[in-house]
Amino acid sequence: MEELRFLYLKQEDVIEAGVLDMKRTIKDVEEVFRLYAEGKVVMPPKSPIDFYDNDYRGHIISMPCYVGGDIDVVGIKWAAGFPKNPMRYGLPLGIDIIILSDPHSGRPLVIMDGTIITAMRTSAVTGIAIKYLARPDSEKVALIGAGVIGRTTLMALPYCMSNIGEVRIYDIKLEKAKSLANEFKERLPISVVRSLKSTVMETDIIITATTSTNKFVKSKWISKGSLCIQVGTNEFDENTVLSADKVVVDNWEQIKDYRRSMLAQLYKEGRLRDNQILELPFIVAGKQPGRENSSELIFFDSFGMACEDIIVAYRIYRNAVRKGLGEELELWKRPLWK
Amino acid sequence: MEELRFLYLKQEDVIEAGVLDMKRTIKDVEEVFRLYAEGKVVMPPKSPIDFYDNDYRGHIISMPCYVGGDIDVVGIKWAAGFPKNPMRYGLPLGIDIIILSDPHSGRPLVIMDGTIITAMRTSAVTGIAIKYLARPDSEKVALIGAGVIGRTTLMALPYCMSNIGEVRIYDIKLEKAKSLANEFKERLPISVVRSLKSTVMETDIIITATTSTNKFVKSKWISKGSLCIQVGTNEFDENTVLSADKVVVDNWEQIKDYRRSMLAQLYKEGRLRDNQILELPFIVAGKQPGRENSSELIFFDSFGMACEDIIVAYRIYRNAVRKGLGEELELWKRPLWK
Repeated sequence: MEELRFLYLKQEDVIEAGVLDMKRTIKDVEEVFRLYAEGKVVMPPKSPIDFYDNDYRGHIISMPCYVGGDIDVVGIKWAAGFPKNPMRYGLPLGIDIIILSDPHSGRPLVIMDGTIITAMRTSAVTGIAIKYLARPDSEKVALIGAGVIGRTTLMALPYCMSNIGEVRIYDIKLEKAKSLANEFKERLPISVVRSLKSTVMETDIIITATTSTNKFVKSKWISKGSLCIQVGTNEFDENTVLSADKVVVDNWEQIKDYRRSMLAQLYKEGRLRDNQILELPFIVAGKQPGRENSSELIFFDSFGMACEDIIVAYRIYRNAVRKGLGEELELWKRPLWK
Repeated sequence: MEELRFLYLKQEDVIEAGVLDMKRTIKDVEEVFRLYAEGKVVMPPKSPIDFYDNDYRGHIISMPCYVGGDIDVVGIKWAAGFPKNPMRYGLPLGIDIIILSDPHSGRPLVIMDGTIITAMRTSAVTGIAIKYLARPDSEKVALIGAGVIGRTTLMALPYCMSNIGEVRIYDIKLEKAKSLANEFKERLPISVVRSLKSTVMETDIIITATTSTNKFVKSKWISKGSLCIQVGTNEFDENTVLSADKVVVDNWEQIKDYRRSMLAQLYKEGRLRDNQILELPFIVAGKQPGRENSSELIFFDSFGMACEDIIVAYRIYRNAVRKGLGEELELWKRPLWK
């Protein structure tokens, strides 16, 4: 009985354990937002390490978090994002690993692929943002970026909009946009658009999910009453933020220190102040106002919070245990020293 | 070829790959200290999460780090420390996991037990501190704490002292001290002492490696010219620090923000200033002075740096690959999304 065992779940196990259930992911993330707003989450700032060749090459971030309440689990996501991976190595852009540990002894419970969890919870947040920040009569959606997060965004839309009239999709690689639209054509009224401007114009919700380092959405394309959701870090022009009636983020403490973030830049320049910022978890918990009328232009910046990963990973872990999935590994057969 | 594989090393594999080689560990840590002093290490602050029942129960820390130069690897240690583990669960106090990743694609190279690495590198730092900060004619060592780190401390002594005349060991549990002394009796002139004061008095080097939250070493017991090495966080009284001729740490940025550290408390109270602090990596690199004469009392506080773990883990990983140790795991057979 001296051996210490934990579960290992590869991506295929994570999928079999139910990670593709977007409805449940949205429910999990709303739950953890409420716990966060109640002070039951301990989440140190993300620690990104950025890599450069001549240009930015990629980053790897450690995201530790304790989720309390009924959940009571601590964990970390070790998340890599290397935009050139698909082209250079035939690898996904994101490669994430999650460890969950018992907060009573520190022993590991599970090590698992976190790549799909990242995509699912990111778009669950987009869904929650739509639920609380979009006009209830929103019908038209613009999606810029037909990558992995573009796909999970499309998965989330039906759970947060009562009537989807039109989804326009744009990607700098036309083929990617076509292929993603094709995947969803039975489920959504989706069409590929060839110009950015026509994608964005006269839509109610504009979602950007790209790795762009250049701001490409112009505020003049955006109608009053819209919701802008920036999932990347530098996609809307500054005027969109500065002219928004509300600027909402997931977690301001983390964003304002992250130098690659456009909001952090505006903050540093004194053009955006702490007291202008609202946070989605507090809106979900009813402690801050969401949308208050149909003419507000709301800008939401999604940076990602470790607690989202940990709550989803914990559900997947429990499902995997119940279903007998994955592989038991030993951290040791017998610890050399005690 | 779509599968993504990495190596998994349990503690027994890590041992077979050479983790118990203290001489080499000291060499590794000196090397990474030089890289650090040259600005070739990117090490975000440790992020500790502390747990409390009524009292402090334990903590878990995420320690990410990129080590550049010829090493060029990024990694993270997820380190749990729960002092009541041995009694409550029959588990070691420390339970650590290390992930190393390729800084070019973010793909994982290895996931491994990091528990032994932690102990080895911690005492390698103690050894390096002795090498650079103790009087060269130091002969007598006091070791308080006969736990895991006490053992690795004894392993390090022969590599950093030219003449070991006497090692006195003390633990609040006498049996633990006796048992550890017995383990080393062929290799070191070691004796168990039953009072703290007699352990410390008239020694040249005093090392504390305990989980105590009460300061128990009194400055009046300590002779001029000594080296005090605090491996825990609260072991020497304040006067030892305040009366020391030099206060040396491994990494001041991390220590001064960690609220459980005694030095952080002194700093907060304005009794210790930034410009009083020297850092061991810069001393090793010859950029700051070490010991300058035989009468200096030097206080060294060892907090632990992620770069120490990563360089040692990388050597172990390469050895394991060479020897064909461990188990290959798949993060995925085929990624669902690219």
